[in-house]
Formats: sequence, C-alpha cells, structure tokens
Amino acid sequence: MRELAVLGSIHLTLTWDQEVMMPPAAAGLRSEQAAILSTVLHERRTSAHVGELIAACEADAEVMADPDAAANLRTLRRDFDRAARLPMELVRETAAVSTLAMHRWRAAREADDFPAFAPWLERLVRLNRDTADARGVPEGGEAYDALLENLEPGMRAAELDRVFGELRTGLVPLIRELRENGTGPDTGWMRIPLATEAQVAFNRGVVERMGFDFDGGRLDASTHPFCVGAGPGDTRLTARYDGGLLLSALHGAMHETGHGLYEQGLPKAGRFGLPLAQAASRAIHESQARMWENFVGRGRPFWEWALPELQRQVSNPAVARLDVDTVFRGLNEVEPSLIRVSSDEATYNLHIMLRFDLERAMLRGDLPVAELPGAWNDRMRSDLGLEVPTDREGVLQDIHWSMGAIGSFPTYTLGNLYAAQLWDALGAELPDLDDQLRRGEFGGVLGWLRTNVHAHGRRYTAPELCERATGRPLGHEPLLRYLEGKLRPVYGL
Amino acid sequence: MRELAVLGSIHLTLTWDQEVMMPPAAAGLRSEQAAILSTVLHERRTSAHVGELIAACEADAEVMADPDAAANLRTLRRDFDRAARLPMELVRETAAVSTLAMHRWRAAREADDFPAFAPWLERLVRLNRDTADARGVPEGGEAYDALLENLEPGMRAAELDRVFGELRTGLVPLIRELRENGTGPDTGWMRIPLATEAQVAFNRGVVERMGFDFDGGRLDASTHPFCVGAGPGDTRLTARYDGGLLLSALHGAMHETGHGLYEQGLPKAGRFGLPLAQAASRAIHESQARMWENFVGRGRPFWEWALPELQRQVSNPAVARLDVDTVFRGLNEVEPSLIRVSSDEATYNLHIMLRFDLERAMLRGDLPVAELPGAWNDRMRSDLGLEVPTDREGVLQDIHWSMGAIGSFPTYTLGNLYAAQLWDALGAELPDLDDQLRRGEFGGVLGWLRTNVHAHGRRYTAPELCERATGRPLGHEPLLRYLEGKLRPVYGL
Repeated sequence: MRELAVLGSIHLTLTWDQEVMMPPAAAGLRSEQAAILSTVLHERRTSAHVGELIAACEADAEVMADPDAAANLRTLRRDFDRAARLPMELVRETAAVSTLAMHRWRAAREADDFPAFAPWLERLVRLNRDTADARGVPEGGEAYDALLENLEPGMRAAELDRVFGELRTGLVPLIRELRENGTGPDTGWMRIPLATEAQVAFNRGVVERMGFDFDGGRLDASTHPFCVGAGPGDTRLTARYDGGLLLSALHGAMHETGHGLYEQGLPKAGRFGLPLAQAASRAIHESQARMWENFVGRGRPFWEWALPELQRQVSNPAVARLDVDTVFRGLNEVEPSLIRVSSDEATYNLHIMLRFDLERAMLRGDLPVAELPGAWNDRMRSDLGLEVPTDREGVLQDIHWSMGAIGSFPTYTLGNLYAAQLWDALGAELPDLDDQLRRGEFGGVLGWLRTNVHAHGRRYTAPELCERATGRPLGHEPLLRYLEGKLRPVYGL
Repeated sequence: MRELAVLGSIHLTLTWDQEVMMPPAAAGLRSEQAAILSTVLHERRTSAHVGELIAACEADAEVMADPDAAANLRTLRRDFDRAARLPMELVRETAAVSTLAMHRWRAAREADDFPAFAPWLERLVRLNRDTADARGVPEGGEAYDALLENLEPGMRAAELDRVFGELRTGLVPLIRELRENGTGPDTGWMRIPLATEAQVAFNRGVVERMGFDFDGGRLDASTHPFCVGAGPGDTRLTARYDGGLLLSALHGAMHETGHGLYEQGLPKAGRFGLPLAQAASRAIHESQARMWENFVGRGRPFWEWALPELQRQVSNPAVARLDVDTVFRGLNEVEPSLIRVSSDEATYNLHIMLRFDLERAMLRGDLPVAELPGAWNDRMRSDLGLEVPTDREGVLQDIHWSMGAIGSFPTYTLGNLYAAQLWDALGAELPDLDDQLRRGEFGGVLGWLRTNVHAHGRRYTAPELCERATGRPLGHEPLLRYLEGKLRPVYGL
C-alpha cells in the first residue's frame, strides 16, 4: 500500500510541476509520463497479489484483533473490490470517451453550441450508468448512489435530496429578501490596486499564521489555485494573482490552506498509503477549505486582526483609509451570478443543487440530454431570478460532466454543510473563539480540527465523522443559521 | 525504449524538483519515490522482453537495411548486453555499499580522518574490479577500460594516459612560467557587490541570447548548478548565486547552458529513448559546457559585447568604471589551488590527471588505499607546487570515489580537450567568429555545434565524432595552444 501511495505521490508531484513550473513545450512529454504512471499504478493496485495480501490479513486473527489494522482492512477490502468489479474495458472506454468529450466540450462552449456536445454527454451518461451497474447499486438505493459511494462513502442521493431541499427552502427566500429589502454593501474598495509582491508577502504571513508548515510545504502562484498533498512532508499550495487587486488572491489561498492543513494533519507518519492516513471524503476535504476561506476569512473577527496587519505591511493611502466594517460587509455581498465559480457563499449552493438535480435526473433517464438546457434555464430563473442568455454562460460553463464526472458537484455544498456544523461544534467548545480570531490566533481552531477531524483519517465515513464530532447527524440548520446570522446584518436587516 | 526513457525522465524531473523546489521535510518521501522508480526502471530495462525485441529487430533484414535503425540497434544491443552481464547481486551490493560509504566519507571529511574512510574505499575498489570483470575487459586492455566503456565508449586508459601525459608535459612548465615570470591580473573588481535580482536578469539575457529555448526550459537558482535534460521540451538549468558578487553565477550558468543547448539540440522528436537521440558521451557533454563557459565566456571578444551590455543594465558606478581588459584578464587568473572545483582553466586539468593516475593504480592493485594520501600529496607538490595541510583539503575533497565512481574524473579533462579541438575546427569554418562574438551573436557557434555534434546523437563514439568533426583524432595540442595563446598575454609574456 505504501508502494502504491509513493507511486501515486510521484503523479501528484508531476501534476504540481505541470501547473506551476513546467516549460510549455514539455506538455507532450508530461502526458506520456502521466499515462505510464497511471498504467503502472492501475496494474499494481488491482493485481491479484494485492487481493491475496488483503485476504491473508483478513484471515489472520492476530492482525484483525488490532482495531487500527481492522479499520484499515475494512476500507482496503471495500476499495479493492470496488476497483476489481469494474471491467477493464469499461475503464478504458470511459477514459477514451471523456478525453474526446473534453475537447468537444471546449469547442462547443467556445461556439455556444450545445447540440455539438449533446451526443458526447449522452455517451458519458450511459457509461456512468454502466459503471454504477458494475459497481453495484446499494440495497434500496439508485444508480447515483453507486457513483456517490466512490467519493462520499456512506452518503445516499435520497439523503442529499432531503438536506439540499431543506436548505433550499430557507435559502431562496433569504436571498430574495436581502436583494429586495436590504442595502447592499460598498465593494468599490475591492478594486484598490496592490502590487503582487505585496500580496504574496501578506498571504504567506496569513497562511503561516494559520498553522501551515512551510518546512513540509510551499505556496506558489498558478492560473487556478489548488493544493497537492503528495505525501508526508510534501504539501503544496498555489494562489492565483490576477489583476493586481487588493485581496484578489487571499481567499483562494486560505481555501487551499484549509486543504493543506488537513493533508498535513492526517496521521501519515509510518502509515502513508493506509486508509487511516487518508482524507475521510471529498466533502470533508472541502469542508476544511470552506471553513478557513469563509467562516474564518470572511468573518468580522478575522478582519479586526487582518486589516490592521495589512495596513501595517503595505504603506498605501487607500488601504490605510479602509475600516473593518467596510471590508467585512464588502466581502459578504450576495449577488446572484450566472456563473458558479463567481458566486458568493449563499447563492453558490443553489448552483450546486441545480446541477445535482439535473445530473440525477439524466442518470435515471428522467431528463433527456436534449432537454437539459431548457431545464437549466428554468431553474436559474426560479431559484436565482436570472435569465440565461447563452448556453456558454449556462449549461456549458463547467468542465465536470465532460470529464465523465457525475456525482462530484454535491460534494461542494456538502462541504459547506459539514463546515457549518463543525464550526458550530467548535464554537461551543471554544467560548472565546471570536477573541482568538481578533488576535490572529488560529491555534484553537486548528487544534480542534486536528483532534476531531484530521486525526481520524478514513476511520469513519463522512456522516459518521460528522455525528461523532458534532453530536448530531448532518442537517441544513447550521449552514442556514450561519448565513442568516451573518448576511442579514450586512444588508441592514 | 520510449517507455523506458519516459520513466527515466520522471526520475530526472524529481531530481530537479529535489534540488530546486522540494520542501525540506519531503526528503524521506523523495528517496522512496526514487527507489521505486529505480526498481521499476531496472526491471524493465533488463527484462527478457527487451532482449527479445532487440533480437527480433536484428533478425529483420528490412529493419536493418535502414542505417538509422541499424545504428540504433548496434548501440541498444551493446547497452543491453552490458547491463545484462552484471549480476543483480553485484549491482545491489555496489548500491548498498556506496550509500553507506558516502555517509562515512562525509563524516571522515568533516573529521579529517582518512583511515575511517579507507576500508570503505577498499571495498569500493574491489567492487569496481568485480564490475569490470563482469562487464568484460576489452581485448588487449585493462580493468579500467571496462569501467570507462560505460561513460566513454571507445576510449581506453592507455590512450588517456598518452594524451594526458603530453598535455601535462606542456602544462606544468607553462603554469610555472606564468607564476614565476608573469604579472598576475587584478581581480579586486570581482568583489564588487551586485544584487542577486540584477544578476538573475543579466544571466537570463545571456542564456537566452546563447540560443537556449525558454519555451522548452527554465533557469532557476540552486545550491549546486546543474542541468537536467528530462526529455523533449523539458531542459532545466540552475545557477548558484552566493555572496551577491558581480558575475558570481554567470560562468556556472553559461556552463549549464552549454549542457542545455546540447540537450535541446539532440534530435529527440519522434525518437526519444533511442541512441540517435542521446548524447555521444559524458566527455562530449562536458565539452559543450566548457566551450560556452570558457572558450566563449572567458574570451575577450565576448566581453567586448557583454561588458557594455552589463553596464547598460545595471546602474552601478563601480561596474561603470570597469574596462574590457580588466575583466578579461581578471577572469583568466591562474592560481594553483588545493581544491579542484575552485581551480582555473589551466591548473584544473592537473587535478584531473592526478585523480586518473591514482584511481587507475588503485584498480590495478599497484597503489594500496593506505598509501593514497601520500601519493596524492607528493603529486600536488610536484605538479602544482602546493603542500597539502590536511586530507580534508586533499584526498577527501571529492564525493566521486565514495559514490563508487571510478573512471568518471577523466571525462572532465577529456571535455576540455574535445572543446579545444572542436573550437579550432569551428574557428576554421567561421573566419569572422571573433566579430560575431563581439556583436553578441552566438548563432554561428551554435549552428556549427548543432550540425557537427548535436545532430549525431550517439551515432558515433566520442573519438569517432571528434575525428569526423575536426578531421583529426583527439590530441593535446589544441588545448595547450589555446591556453598558451590566451594566458601568456594575460600575464604580459
């Protein structure tokens, strides 16, 4: 398992290099490197030898008497069987079709031509259905559950439907009320220019103060911010500096640092490659990122520390004139957007629910691909009050479906829901949380996350972890309450 | 072969990352990555399958009728047989012993304790003898030849002995005369401080102007300068910036650019992994680096362009006061040093000959390891007129022997010899060479090297390549004549 993880870590390091360092002309070589590594990895991961080793451990009473070993083996068995159940031919066809589909999607988006992409999306929906059948639909579940099980073990489409539905019921009227009866914040200050070097220095200071260990990591610049936790001692973050505007990169950097702190907090020493050293799920990973980006980084207490700190570091008259209230309110503007990735903390979730409902309906066969744009546009109108002028700004905006990924969108809003519920529990145990943040002290937050989330690795599924850490199953209330509590005052309500 | 080369390129990219980017705490993970890649590579490279593929090509008359294919297969066969002839046990033992020996060498150098390292050196000499026996000593040759064949196919110890001897016969009196009767140049200006950023910008401009393609490469900073030609479109150089002194990094950067231009000039497109796309030998690689570093970069014509360029780029009064003669003369000071890597262009070769003679004598069994320090010190006295105060500044200074490498030192002086002979031939075909350099035009030099060296890959052995490109077998005269012609005037003789 360690050998497999080390091979995987090579792949991750090369991915980082590709986005941050690689000379443009090396793209061809890099794709050959990635292809060979994938082949070597897949061959080893699904080899009969690995199956035999797992079975030998399971048959050994002494091994299984150790609760850590038993927990590792339970998950290894599940991963191995799930991988082994997929026919190689289906894996290959999905890889081949999605490579082509991504090219077609790019061209179709460019030309605003959904019909050109539709046949490819149809093929990918069919392949996802075949994959779900091969993996096996859980008792009493649906095809979507078999896909979800890969990213969010223990989560079910019906459960998502319930929690998302409750959140939406509260969120749509809240957003409408803010927009109709509230007073929007001033955001003009966000266009204050600030040299990239000054932003880099400030961001690095914040990231270090959050607890990121630079002895085992880096922070660089790239076109899209990301985090790569390659392995023990090697976690790399990037931020995107564009336009040279004040704070343009900070929240992206804090988001990736949330991912990075989770990677650095996983108990990898001595068990890198085993489930107990891996992240619980995609949504739990996302919850860590969203918590630091939004719950900390868009909160008033944080800015009571960060604004004077920024003013001290950069001698800029426009920055010197800013006050905490202006910054806090401006960072929490609610502005429905056609585009998911430009959306604010509240409306973002409506984008995700839309995608979840539509991809689930396509997978079920309830929504023909040809009718997808119409369904998309209706929902944008009813949920966000926006008319979609072109498919390019509508159904063609995201890369995910063209990559063959069905079941990944929900993990973003799940991340927000988990973050809110963890934040509540954390706040209950740290009564002076706001004072800590006002002093720029993040050790309390990080320590709680280390103990209640990071240390467990994949010992529990995400729903189990949530219940253990917060005392309650996942619900919509914490996120809705948090958004209400923050946004109403921002809008003077 | 391409698959093997792509796997090898991953290793090279990770090596670059390790020296330039890797967080310190990732050292353990990186060594596991390297170990797994080495195993995968070695297994595939020596697999029976590769042997069968080579044999099938050799048996196919149509394939062998193509001269390129025949040239590739000749070399592939030789490489494969040589690798296959080595017993796996000997490879493993050598790797294990040299890993330990490197640690012992570091400690012994630190403590100036040669006897603590001696038993390890003895084991490594014995393992090198076993390796030579396993590889097979060429007809009429000696054990040293079997080691040399791996780095410098077609070169023989007796031939090295002859050329080195002739060079030494001319070089020792030249150096003595410069020192005794000449007037040494002023080198005080070399301690003018210059900010690293200014050096980086100037060096990048020079490297680009030399013809290095940044679309397929990079130039960064590292502790030791090096060049990694990972594969098509990915050649990375580093320079060492220490002390913030004017020109502290330029010649290192030009040296690595020489390596990099060779890598970028090898005909890799469509045949990466085949011998025709690989460097002819270690010494030919070195000749490219030395030519740009010394023959161009320490020459007067180059500085007639480069000094005004530097003065234009940096507004520094001390730099503005410099003249070409001062810079040219200062860069060509001859100053015997105890340390090989701090040596000038002339005395450097005496360090190499010393090491060649001593390692050859050890391998033959003519020089017991216990007598090595004495032999070293005698030779430093007779050749360079220096007393060696400690073994740390003497026999313990280089890492090479502790890594188990016997036969690699000569490639450095061979590189100088090839560079001089190629430089003569190049000059004969470019009558306005000096004028080109005075205008900062390097396309003439690069074009000649592309045609006469780079384009051939490993089609010819280094001695064959030299004879084809220069019309004569390798000799000592061009290097000696070049050094005489440059250094006498520098010293007013």
